[in-house]
Amino acid sequence: MGSQKFVYTFGARTAEGNKSMRILLGGKGANLAEMNRIGLPVPPGFTISTEACNAYYKDGKQPTLNLLKDQVMHGIETIENIAGKTFGSESKPLLLSVRSGARSSMPGMMDTVLNLGLNDKIVEAWAKATGNERLAWDSYRRFCQMYGSVVLGLKPIFQDEVDPFEQIIDEVKEARNVTLDNDLTISDLKELVVRFKARIHERTGKDIPDDPYDQLWGGIIAVFDSWMGKRAIQYRKINDIPNDWGTAVNVQAMVFGNTSNNSATGVAFTRDPATGENNFVGEYLINAQGEDVVAGIRTPQQISLKGSQRWAKLANISEEVRKSTYPSLEEAMPTVYKELDDVRIMLENHYTDMQDLEFTIEEGRLWILQTRDGKRTGEAMVRIAHDLQVEGLISAATSINRIEPDKLNELLHPVFNKKDLKTAKMISQGLPASPGAATGQIVFFAEDAEDWAAAGKPVILVRMETSPEDISGMNSAKGILTARGGMTSHAAVVARGMGKCAITGAGSLIIDYTNRQFRVGDVVYKEGDWISLDGYTGYIYEGRVPTKDPEISTHLQKLMTIADSQSRLRVLANADTPTDAKTAREFGARGIGLCRTEHMFFKPERIRIVREMVLAKDEAGRRRALDKLLPIQMQDFEEILEVMHDLPVTIRLLDPPLHEFLPEDEAAERMIAEDLGITFEEVLDRVNTLHETNPMLGHRGCRLANTYPEITQMQVHAILEASIHLKKRGVHVYPEIMIPLTSIGNELRMQIKIIRDTAEEIFAKYNDTVDYKVGTMIEIPRAVIIADQIAPMVDFFSFGTNDLTQMTFGFSRDDIGKFLPIYLEKGILKKDPFQSIDQDGVGQLVSVGTANGKRVNDHLKVGVCGEHGGDPDSIRFFHRSELDYVSCSPFRIPIARFVAAQSAINEKMSDEALKIKAAELA
Amino acid sequence: MGSQKFVYTFGARTAEGNKSMRILLGGKGANLAEMNRIGLPVPPGFTISTEACNAYYKDGKQPTLNLLKDQVMHGIETIENIAGKTFGSESKPLLLSVRSGARSSMPGMMDTVLNLGLNDKIVEAWAKATGNERLAWDSYRRFCQMYGSVVLGLKPIFQDEVDPFEQIIDEVKEARNVTLDNDLTISDLKELVVRFKARIHERTGKDIPDDPYDQLWGGIIAVFDSWMGKRAIQYRKINDIPNDWGTAVNVQAMVFGNTSNNSATGVAFTRDPATGENNFVGEYLINAQGEDVVAGIRTPQQISLKGSQRWAKLANISEEVRKSTYPSLEEAMPTVYKELDDVRIMLENHYTDMQDLEFTIEEGRLWILQTRDGKRTGEAMVRIAHDLQVEGLISAATSINRIEPDKLNELLHPVFNKKDLKTAKMISQGLPASPGAATGQIVFFAEDAEDWAAAGKPVILVRMETSPEDISGMNSAKGILTARGGMTSHAAVVARGMGKCAITGAGSLIIDYTNRQFRVGDVVYKEGDWISLDGYTGYIYEGRVPTKDPEISTHLQKLMTIADSQSRLRVLANADTPTDAKTAREFGARGIGLCRTEHMFFKPERIRIVREMVLAKDEAGRRRALDKLLPIQMQDFEEILEVMHDLPVTIRLLDPPLHEFLPEDEAAERMIAEDLGITFEEVLDRVNTLHETNPMLGHRGCRLANTYPEITQMQVHAILEASIHLKKRGVHVYPEIMIPLTSIGNELRMQIKIIRDTAEEIFAKYNDTVDYKVGTMIEIPRAVIIADQIAPMVDFFSFGTNDLTQMTFGFSRDDIGKFLPIYLEKGILKKDPFQSIDQDGVGQLVSVGTANGKRVNDHLKVGVCGEHGGDPDSIRFFHRSELDYVSCSPFRIPIARFVAAQSAINEKMSDEALKIKAAELA
Repeated sequence: MGSQKFVYTFGARTAEGNKSMRILLGGKGANLAEMNRIGLPVPPGFTISTEACNAYYKDGKQPTLNLLKDQVMHGIETIENIAGKTFGSESKPLLLSVRSGARSSMPGMMDTVLNLGLNDKIVEAWAKATGNERLAWDSYRRFCQMYGSVVLGLKPIFQDEVDPFEQIIDEVKEARNVTLDNDLTISDLKELVVRFKARIHERTGKDIPDDPYDQLWGGIIAVFDSWMGKRAIQYRKINDIPNDWGTAVNVQAMVFGNTSNNSATGVAFTRDPATGENNFVGEYLINAQGEDVVAGIRTPQQISLKGSQRWAKLANISEEVRKSTYPSLEEAMPTVYKELDDVRIMLENHYTDMQDLEFTIEEGRLWILQTRDGKRTGEAMVRIAHDLQVEGLISAATSINRIEPDKLNELLHPVFNKKDLKTAKMISQGLPASPGAATGQIVFFAEDAEDWAAAGKPVILVRMETSPEDISGMNSAKGILTARGGMTSHAAVVARGMGKCAITGAGSLIIDYTNRQFRVGDVVYKEGDWISLDGYTGYIYEGRVPTKDPEISTHLQKLMTIADSQSRLRVLANADTPTDAKTAREFGARGIGLCRTEHMFFKPERIRIVREMVLAKDEAGRRRALDKLLPIQMQDFEEILEVMHDLPVTIRLLDPPLHEFLPEDEAAERMIAEDLGITFEEVLDRVNTLHETNPMLGHRGCRLANTYPEITQMQVHAILEASIHLKKRGVHVYPEIMIPLTSIGNELRMQIKIIRDTAEEIFAKYNDTVDYKVGTMIEIPRAVIIADQIAPMVDFFSFGTNDLTQMTFGFSRDDIGKFLPIYLEKGILKKDPFQSIDQDGVGQLVSVGTANGKRVNDHLKVGVCGEHGGDPDSIRFFHRSELDYVSCSPFRIPIARFVAAQSAINEKMSDEALKIKAAELA
Repeated sequence: MGSQKFVYTFGARTAEGNKSMRILLGGKGANLAEMNRIGLPVPPGFTISTEACNAYYKDGKQPTLNLLKDQVMHGIETIENIAGKTFGSESKPLLLSVRSGARSSMPGMMDTVLNLGLNDKIVEAWAKATGNERLAWDSYRRFCQMYGSVVLGLKPIFQDEVDPFEQIIDEVKEARNVTLDNDLTISDLKELVVRFKARIHERTGKDIPDDPYDQLWGGIIAVFDSWMGKRAIQYRKINDIPNDWGTAVNVQAMVFGNTSNNSATGVAFTRDPATGENNFVGEYLINAQGEDVVAGIRTPQQISLKGSQRWAKLANISEEVRKSTYPSLEEAMPTVYKELDDVRIMLENHYTDMQDLEFTIEEGRLWILQTRDGKRTGEAMVRIAHDLQVEGLISAATSINRIEPDKLNELLHPVFNKKDLKTAKMISQGLPASPGAATGQIVFFAEDAEDWAAAGKPVILVRMETSPEDISGMNSAKGILTARGGMTSHAAVVARGMGKCAITGAGSLIIDYTNRQFRVGDVVYKEGDWISLDGYTGYIYEGRVPTKDPEISTHLQKLMTIADSQSRLRVLANADTPTDAKTAREFGARGIGLCRTEHMFFKPERIRIVREMVLAKDEAGRRRALDKLLPIQMQDFEEILEVMHDLPVTIRLLDPPLHEFLPEDEAAERMIAEDLGITFEEVLDRVNTLHETNPMLGHRGCRLANTYPEITQMQVHAILEASIHLKKRGVHVYPEIMIPLTSIGNELRMQIKIIRDTAEEIFAKYNDTVDYKVGTMIEIPRAVIIADQIAPMVDFFSFGTNDLTQMTFGFSRDDIGKFLPIYLEKGILKKDPFQSIDQDGVGQLVSVGTANGKRVNDHLKVGVCGEHGGDPDSIRFFHRSELDYVSCSPFRIPIARFVAAQSAINEKMSDEALKIKAAELA
């Protein structure tokens, strides 16, 4: 025990630690050691290991501190030797910083105490020695403030209380009648130190020790104690972090960017974090401290000449003024810049990713204070991952793993500028149902949306909820806003399919169709008023917030191709029209996994025929109407199948209940009656007969098709005759016919017979055949239970996880808005199960159904065609559940392709590699 | 092979077979042998085994017949020896019958040929020998007819064709100008024989063989061949009967009840099949053949004196006339009657059940032709089972197994007389939603039902569908008829709970509320018109069909007590009111398994307060309304708990969505607004906000309780304070609080916390405690999937199989009427899954959920409180799934108690016993 190593030194390329020692040294300590090892100019220091922290709690505080003493003293000596300064000396005083450093940064932990090693005597001596009295006294003032607050605990007690130190500063500034800290004189700074010390004593009964070593031990103990602080414990509890991780303590020599005009401080990115271009970008300030760069009091300068010139152009500053007032580091300190640029290369080579670094130049000497993977935009993420792969720095697999799928959204949909949002007035919030940004004028009716859009006006369609009748209007709108419905309501699903921004379930909107207005609280918004929707957050803004359009870069295209080469799970698209199918193909869909035939039924020229069918009194009447629909459907299928040549197209037979095709208001019903030459009463009778209390659990899907087999016959006829036409024209087509809502073996058996019989007829008619597959949706819990009975009858299963989630939870996605927000808020549910598959419940059905189906049918293809097919967490789950494909909205395809690839890549990683990765991420 | 025994003789108590040889000898053959063995006077004969039939098909027809020849000849000799007659002799001819006899009787098999052994010569000789020319020629005529039809195949070809033999008889009768067969003269009978033979030859090209042995072989071959007849094969296919069962052939000496007035024939029951009383009842005719007794041309006489006298009294016949014209067998043939009465005792002792027997008396000698378990009414079934057990003939277990549960229905509900129904005009048919019979005047509104009933009129409430608002009206009606809804629609469930006749889903009724009438086709039925409902069949009759009321006999009471002693599964009741609870207790419920608190909310004085709560704008408003409800609920619970003292009462917390408590029409909404002093718009706003697209999957159950915890607080407060009041009065109460609609662990956790916290408050207030349990409904598929997570949190699971069936199938019970009838008709479903648990799907969830719950919680009590709790097949399944209890409507309790007992009894039977039982039943 006495011989256990607790202290690891670094500096002068002789670090005892390295980046793999994160568990022992914490994230910061391991990284400082690593930078030092690879030759970066890191101020010397040492790390007290997390084991010391654990010993402190396990073996007692004092015994551990006793054990530490010699090792810490040795650490200080090492720093002194490298820095050529002495801790506690008045001639060449060494100043230190003390920071906590757990495996991952943690709120509630002690942050930083700077400038340890100063006292009333040393500060005077240091001022004299450097000739920089202001630096000395400002540093001392800051030390007293930080030590008093962080180590001695003089902090505001109540949330609305002013910080006691800031209060003193304000008092002095008021007395001097100045506003900026910088306007305080050296004597003011001296007064501050005196008053700080007095206030500390008065309030805590404690004093800042004069002995620098006592200061250091106070700092180390404060770090250890903060590990068991209330907020830290609470944070660990919520995030499932064990108490025995412990924290490390980092003690490091101070460097100063504010000693003279030969000093500077700055931050830089090794590549452009906005675009991903391979440019060195960053900002710096001469004779300044790190916090000054971000404080915004002085205008920071660009580090590279190129960057500086670009900046000046945008800021409308002449080259002359730029050169004289805002020179780049490249110009101001060319040697140091060259050194920094070398560091940049070294860092990228070493960390194989774009880095965000902090540096300080003290009297012409460069110090690197920190490096870490740089935050970046979606665009930069894609470009950097691809470039690094092309440059040979990272493997294909790694480049794919560098993509954060959700971040791709901003590349695929319009977005707002963040700064525009800061000034926009938020009206209300709903569910972020479909990503994107939209701005336009309010309309309340789908027909108006079409008319206004035709007249060139951008519109936002605002509805209580949408229905299939509204589809054309939705398509014409820039965005959709509904007061009811959840993440998988009609509006949400259709909008996502269209790649269009939508917000649903905005419960605070009171819509008044009659007066064409909606109300939020007391504020009224009328037809024609401008509003803006943020589909990423669900925020609704007043007025016109500008949007910018996306474009798919070649980098993204290329990276997606790499992704596909790594995947096991294929990505197909949900697409109902030739246009959708084209989009899907452009986004790289490997086929259509769900083509909803009923969506074709709503176009004006067709809905009349469909209604004739729905209103028919008998089979003969239905067949007459279906005969009229046949050529239209055939044309639909021919177009879609042609677009998707050489790829499978899964066509779902008619799914919704028939009443969805009838209007609900009397006027429309009277029109239909007139149009079809029947009485209004007859229409009404049928509407009443078709009415359902719970349409989700009603007469639809194969239940309808088994009641009216002629509907299936017509649809299969259309699919296969279209296929034969295409075959004759040399187009390779792969139709797959999908039966919806199966819950009973006999239901499926009966439908398959109708399909096979119809196929035989068509094939006989043309004396030719096409390959086609027959499969079933698995969207009813009972279908999962009997998966082994039905799997032998079909070629594929497609999990309809939307409906499966509805039935498994007993949740109606149309009504869930009443309690889901409360459930999420109270933590009853962690996620909306319609957005991300419920792995413990619904997911179990998917896994079990897949396994049971494949067990009895080797050739069974299994996929998912619910909205979950485009959700990253869900896709990962489907990969693990050994599904063969996911099908999602065209606009989610890029995301799905990356997640599919990542799932396959991570599965291949050895357990060891996963452990290391987990440790790194922790 | 040559030595295999194919022929088993019987007669003179020397039968080679017995009743356990059913597989070898067929049902009839085994039974004839058995009767002979126990000393009953059975005409001698022999049975050719099923193995012979199999050999006939396997080894070839002729080889098998060759093998049979000697054994059959030996069989004939045996008969001849016993009968003292000779087959084919002219002096003392032996006549034979040939019948098929498989393990169970089977349509399409050859039935019977009588009087084999006659030809033109023998008939003359026999006529002379007996001096009964008519008997001889009539027998010969019948023989020709049967042989021609059954063996030689002269049958009508088309369905509407007259039987060729009947056609000849008609022609002769017409020529003689007579109407009855009996009016034909002997020479007419002779002419019939000639014409029969000619027609057979003309149509089939074959002749009836003159040689009696050829006749016999023809008969035997005809039986064998009929085994592979089209109809027999078809029947076996449908009923899963293997082809290799084969059929036996029974050859037996003829006896004649029509030789003289010293002969007779009759049928008898060893006990009264209508009442179960231990009286010998039966009918006979002197000088008659078996078919004459049932043909109805002559009036049959009673066998016992007591029966005869009772009959005469009912028929208004004087003792004098009775004695002279319709004497009992006891009077007419006292010796034979004594012999028959001995047979009765012997049969009951031997078969240990009431027997239905056929006898013939030939010249004073009694012959028993058949005995079998007698069909009986429900009342007789109960009484006989109980009496036989008391008499020591059968064990307690056997007496319970003698009860056919469905047959008890007629003891528990009003019924029609069958003969009344024959003349009633059927209007239409719906689903037999709740058993019983009802007759009354049509009303269309619940309030009218109450008013008319209060005025003493019996009413039938006719609705599109019912809602909770209609409950009082339903209670006032004699019967309920709805045009929509299935077997578990609101109307059905509530009616069964009330033990009231209901027919639902009568789709052909077009109801016109405005004109207070309904239409079926072109016929209109108005308010006040009489109709009658048969809840057993779903038939709706025009006019007033009289009903008769049930009563529970002491026999039934005693037998149910025996049943309980045999059961593992306990039977509890669904009961919402003190009245229900009383009924349940009378029927022997072992507690209440489901008390729906919301049903208490609809009484007029309460609904106002409930609506105030629903319409409240905030929690404070809700709490104000709930405070008013609290004393009312407490009173409810106190009454129910008191009725059910010493037994558990499971109270379900509020389950339905709030909008169920609001009316849907404007007038009522305006009234509420006025009543509560708020604006109509406010009411409308709330109605619109509460509206749900799929209420079944909506904001209800614990979702509601987690959103508005104050509702649970009020209900738990009411339950526990009521319990403490009762405890103080010395009443032992066992409240069990049940949380509905759980699908997520956290939902349950949160509700349990509210319950426990509320309990602590109440207990602190009274400084006293009561034992209470907390459990959850399992009615959402996801709850089953996570059963092992939630079981440790609760004391009991109660499967709500109604909702579980809805979610698992994705069927809405309110809408299922649109396709369920078609599904049943097409055989997609074999049974309505809401009536009888779907064992392959929903049942699997029940089994798995039970097993997983009990695995992690030893003390977990598991039951079912859906409608399935009263269905026999479902109860058997629940027993096998090791549930602890079922809870059902009070009126289903007797049935459930018997089924529960039978399940336990049958489980205890050894495999061997089960095999034997299966063979007997086959």
